[in-house]
Parts: sequence; C-alpha cells; structure tokens
Amino acid sequence: MPSVGPVQHAQRRAFGNRVKLLRTDRGLSQEALAHLAELDRTYIGGVERGERNISLDNIHRVAEALGIRARDLL
Amino acid sequence: MPSVGPVQHAQRRAFGNRVKLLRTDRGLSQEALAHLAELDRTYIGGVERGERNISLDNIHRVAEALGIRARDLL
Repeated sequence: MPSVGPVQHAQRRAFGNRVKLLRTDRGLSQEALAHLAELDRTYIGGVERGERNISLDNIHRVAEALGIRARDLL
Repeated sequence: MPSVGPVQHAQRRAFGNRVKLLRTDRGLSQEALAHLAELDRTYIGGVERGERNISLDNIHRVAEALGIRARDLL
C-alpha cells in the first residue's frame, strides 16, 4: 500500500471542500446528501473533512446526488 | 456497504477503458504505468478490466503518471 503523504491529504481535502461547497450551494444538509447518495451521513462528513479516501463508486454516487458529472467533483 | 450493481460495473469498466486508452496512446505497458504511479502492475490490470473500485488517491496517482488531470480520467 502506497503511503499517505501531504499530497494525498491535500487532494482529499480539496475533494471534500468541493463536495461541501456544492452541497451547501444546493441547500442540502450532510444528512440529505447522504440519503440521496445512499451513503452514511458520517461517511459524507469524513469525506468533506478530507479524512476519507473515497472510491470511484462513491464519487459517482455523490456526484449523482449533487446532480453533476463525476469529473466535476475533481 | 452499498451493493455493486450493473451501474457501478459499467462506471468501473468505463474508467478502466479510459486508463487503457490513455496508457496505450502513450506507448506505455501496464508495468511502466504501474511503476510511474507507484502501484502494482496487477492492480493496474484490474483497474483496466473494470474489476477494481479505485480510490481517490490512486485516481490521482494514475492521472499524474499519465500526465493528465484526475478529472480527465472520469
């Protein structure tokens, strides 16, 4: 397993910040987004804080719940 | 854990096809791409076949190894 360094942390935080921005733009709570994406609210919170190494499947779920393309989350 | 259905399989295969296309365009072997991305060759093979639910960290690694932005892999 490759190590998790400052670059990965920064990429995860950038991703999380983007999710949070898009979520709040749409007036959604973390709970509402989690429900739409069929994911757990605590997982969404962890993603937004840059604490999760989100997978491709879940990137697509979150993007779909936000009504955008997955590429627009990166 | 959400189930893995046909939609996820299609999204993983689409991602894998894109990696393979971009890799072969650059005349890279799976081994060469794996080396550049600091990942295992068998992992790259699995991603290209749509068998892996690749993570955000590894999406960035593969994109960087291909010399493109992560969003351009999606």
